[in-house]
Amino acid sequence: MAKTQITAEPGIPQIIITREFEAPCALVFRAYTDPELIVRWLGPRELTMRFDYHEPRDGGRWRYVSIDPAGNEYGFHGVFHGEPSIDGIVQTFEYEGVPGHVALETVTFEDVDGRTLVRSVSSFQSVEDRDGMIASGAEHGIRDSDERLEELLAELQGR
Amino acid sequence: MAKTQITAEPGIPQIIITREFEAPCALVFRAYTDPELIVRWLGPRELTMRFDYHEPRDGGRWRYVSIDPAGNEYGFHGVFHGEPSIDGIVQTFEYEGVPGHVALETVTFEDVDGRTLVRSVSSFQSVEDRDGMIASGAEHGIRDSDERLEELLAELQGR
Repeated sequence: MAKTQITAEPGIPQIIITREFEAPCALVFRAYTDPELIVRWLGPRELTMRFDYHEPRDGGRWRYVSIDPAGNEYGFHGVFHGEPSIDGIVQTFEYEGVPGHVALETVTFEDVDGRTLVRSVSSFQSVEDRDGMIASGAEHGIRDSDERLEELLAELQGR
Repeated sequence: MAKTQITAEPGIPQIIITREFEAPCALVFRAYTDPELIVRWLGPRELTMRFDYHEPRDGGRWRYVSIDPAGNEYGFHGVFHGEPSIDGIVQTFEYEGVPGHVALETVTFEDVDGRTLVRSVSSFQSVEDRDGMIASGAEHGIRDSDERLEELLAELQGR
């Protein structure tokens, strides 16, 4: 059901992702903001995830680490612009393996007959940064994330 | 000397501004980060400016108000991603008159034979947002800001 659409047009420093989930907005929003839930779905299946901190408020910082089967850690961090709410989450995003390259991420949740349409816009500082993100294998992670989130939402709803 | 170049290509949700100042990087950086100096140059000449808060650290928040001759106030706010340093300032930016539209701003300072090349990249959430910023008269404010900063830097250097 989570038909993921990834849009990354040539020359435009953005990635736009839309997907629809069989769950109400409030539950999807919770899955996007509760770190105990986020670690259960964000990222490729072969990685595990640990939050060092997650402060969902205006100016709050977050940092998580993805850990591969060999134990290598990959850090990511950012800050929240405004209080995350069901009206939207706006945050910065930086992969610490390529420091100094920052994206602005905006996630919104729209009710569609009881399902939830999630739209995510990542605005990069340059097309090169955007292309680097894609070359790093982001699409694999995005598709795994959506499948895992779909499974988690089904479990949380007792389906 | 501050030959300002403003680049805003059709279909690309960014504004890129470059300008060069007759001052060393450290002084230009100070003018960009000390709120008592910022209020002396940022924005069109006909407006005055007041900071409500300015916390130059990772996750720190800032808010300022521009005040027109009639006393109308226009608020702006954002958060810093990472500690602002002479290597760069990365922050979010939102005009409160159009809430929910956020840009990511990156400012870097490059030494060019004792002068400073300032490069500012604003990445918007959409081309519409970028075009709205331009339609609001941003260019007038940018050009006034550059002239005023040039004057301030001359004064600070006793020229």
